[in-house]
Amino acid sequence: MSLIVQKYGGSSVADAESIKRVAKRIVETRKAGNEVVVVVSAMGDTTDELLDLANQVTPLATGRELDMLLTAGERISMALLAMAIKSLGQEARSYTGSQAGLITDAKHGSARIVDVTPKRVRDALDAGAVAIVAGFQGFNRGTGDITTLGRGGSDTTAVALAAALDADVCEIYTDVDGVFTADPRVVPAARKIDRITSEEMLELAAAGAKVLYIRAVEYARRHGVTLHVRSSFNNNVGTLVVNPKDGESVEEPIIAGVASDLSEAKITVVGVPDVPGKAAQIFTIVATTDANIDMIVQNVSTAATGLTDISFTLPKSDGAKVLKVLEDNKAQVGFHSLQYDDQIGKLALVGAGMRTNAGVSAKLFTALFEAGINIEMISTSEIRISVVTRADTINEAVRVVHRAFDLDGEEVAQVHGGTGR
Amino acid sequence: MSLIVQKYGGSSVADAESIKRVAKRIVETRKAGNEVVVVVSAMGDTTDELLDLANQVTPLATGRELDMLLTAGERISMALLAMAIKSLGQEARSYTGSQAGLITDAKHGSARIVDVTPKRVRDALDAGAVAIVAGFQGFNRGTGDITTLGRGGSDTTAVALAAALDADVCEIYTDVDGVFTADPRVVPAARKIDRITSEEMLELAAAGAKVLYIRAVEYARRHGVTLHVRSSFNNNVGTLVVNPKDGESVEEPIIAGVASDLSEAKITVVGVPDVPGKAAQIFTIVATTDANIDMIVQNVSTAATGLTDISFTLPKSDGAKVLKVLEDNKAQVGFHSLQYDDQIGKLALVGAGMRTNAGVSAKLFTALFEAGINIEMISTSEIRISVVTRADTINEAVRVVHRAFDLDGEEVAQVHGGTGR
Repeated sequence: MSLIVQKYGGSSVADAESIKRVAKRIVETRKAGNEVVVVVSAMGDTTDELLDLANQVTPLATGRELDMLLTAGERISMALLAMAIKSLGQEARSYTGSQAGLITDAKHGSARIVDVTPKRVRDALDAGAVAIVAGFQGFNRGTGDITTLGRGGSDTTAVALAAALDADVCEIYTDVDGVFTADPRVVPAARKIDRITSEEMLELAAAGAKVLYIRAVEYARRHGVTLHVRSSFNNNVGTLVVNPKDGESVEEPIIAGVASDLSEAKITVVGVPDVPGKAAQIFTIVATTDANIDMIVQNVSTAATGLTDISFTLPKSDGAKVLKVLEDNKAQVGFHSLQYDDQIGKLALVGAGMRTNAGVSAKLFTALFEAGINIEMISTSEIRISVVTRADTINEAVRVVHRAFDLDGEEVAQVHGGTGR
Repeated sequence: MSLIVQKYGGSSVADAESIKRVAKRIVETRKAGNEVVVVVSAMGDTTDELLDLANQVTPLATGRELDMLLTAGERISMALLAMAIKSLGQEARSYTGSQAGLITDAKHGSARIVDVTPKRVRDALDAGAVAIVAGFQGFNRGTGDITTLGRGGSDTTAVALAAALDADVCEIYTDVDGVFTADPRVVPAARKIDRITSEEMLELAAAGAKVLYIRAVEYARRHGVTLHVRSSFNNNVGTLVVNPKDGESVEEPIIAGVASDLSEAKITVVGVPDVPGKAAQIFTIVATTDANIDMIVQNVSTAATGLTDISFTLPKSDGAKVLKVLEDNKAQVGFHSLQYDDQIGKLALVGAGMRTNAGVSAKLFTALFEAGINIEMISTSEIRISVVTRADTINEAVRVVHRAFDLDGEEVAQVHGGTGR
């Protein structure tokens, strides 16, 4: 008997009909002889509707009360799902994050899981029931208060339960068939990846692939949980995200996939004195804003002026506050001026195989050059190469790179709309 | 410093604007130097919408999961109300029934309160905060599950907290100015009652007055909680429901008010053998249906036939099942036939003063006779007289009785729409 954790996002439980469809799938999995734990997000737009209500009451909603409000969403979906399963003759019991033992720190809105004690979930399984657990929510022991895990919280709940229950697999249901070599809306020839390492998946997620949240992949990697990303609209096998043990030989293709991201902007600090400690000074100032800095590039200074430029990318939503804090410290740092560019696109090529394969970056740059696409920034890790181009060339860039690395498949991918949390 | 428990029903928190209005009133009460505990129902139609969703998923929703679903409603309203209060600069913290220590038995959908341990509520008050508590919901220690209290649950939550915290008063906010001598929609001249005993209030509630639930009044009487029923739409003083101690002299008017009820039907068992034990046999059979039997009248048998008729009233919604169980046992009981009449109206005249005041029933019957209204059944308690008339004469009956007992006031009552749970 296998223990399977299944996670369904908001689009999979958007209305009563969807809930009944998901219930049928869960019962089939149970009837096939598996123990089943289901993690569920709030229905469709529920979270946005609750946030809208909060905004109507006050734009200054605070963490504790906002978490209390938002956790009503999963309470509704999980209770309805349990009812739907029971109506099919299969016993089911729903549990809040607190009842399922998702213990977190006290940071409302973005709590971290500190312990998982799923005793009631285990008891439900032992009694032959399917256990339904509210995603996205936890409980802080110190304050006795309800918390939420922030973006991607339901994925993280599922992975954390899978780890604590020693599940055989954690299935993440979504509206696409799995993880693709590129976004199928950009590259119609994109292929579904059958198997990918969690390390590669991390780089893809960090580079803009939306199908899985970085945090959940990170948790899965650290605890050795195997993920299976698949569609809730069919029974196709999706993408397995695996954790090969040290020294274990995994037949890996050189490149796993290409990801792109249009949500970032570039700030260039122009005319920075080229003396030791300046970069540290700048990013210490930037860090006070909590902005997520991604790529950082420093140009070689021209000896004549003794000045250099430092560029970095960050989410557009963080742009204004970072510009302000830098401007406020202009005299102290001693730079000339700031440039802000929100018309950039970021492309990342990811693959564990490139570690041992020379020429990957040369091939990437050549493909872009031949397509007439200019590269503005470059940054690399052991298993990833990222480049920044003009935003309006990014889709073409993804297509030519995808083709250059022989990733194009024969079938055209199927895409459904909507994403959950 | 007084401790005040305030209960707001669903119509008082129906949308963001209403929530802000209620928040303002709560903050004023706090600023006036009182400790404030607020019990809140789900917003407007939330509960009905959740029930509708459950019905779409399955018509067979079970207690545990239905309670999990419905309790999302108060979670939303209490979090929003706490946010609204905080945005006015007053600290507030919201608590679920479980967090507030509302311990119940395990009867999902109609749980009874078995203990109230409001430690977190007390701590919040000690810290200067307003405590917001979800009405209608509790927690069973044995199963660890969430429960709901059923109809009138929020009123009961408020009274139970007031008792446990030894509050000075429990204010029940509603959409009318208080308890009236009769339904103002029927008797425009009805007066607001300034002060009424809980005993009288119980009789009025049992006789169809909708402003308070019997269960909450019963709890308040048993625990000596003073209720103040008032409007959330103005600052008028409402109706005090008091618990005079034994021997304490309360200057009581003879009559508190008149209530009417059109939700009942009458069943007559015709031709019952007039031998000992027949009534017991009939009502033992009726009791198997859990129907709420109200008035019971047995006619004197005519010596010639040795047969008698037994009539009783019950909620129309229980009519079909009671008829069926009686029909099924016809041979055993030995009656002739059954008559079902759902065109009856019930009028009740309530007043603790009638205990010591002769002639009340004579005056009541005379008033009805003079108005040409026929009385079909009569039943009395120490402080109440109930009569059954044709349904289409009930409003006229209420008006003439109201006038006969000099209850008519000078002002015409204001009525708002809607009720909560």
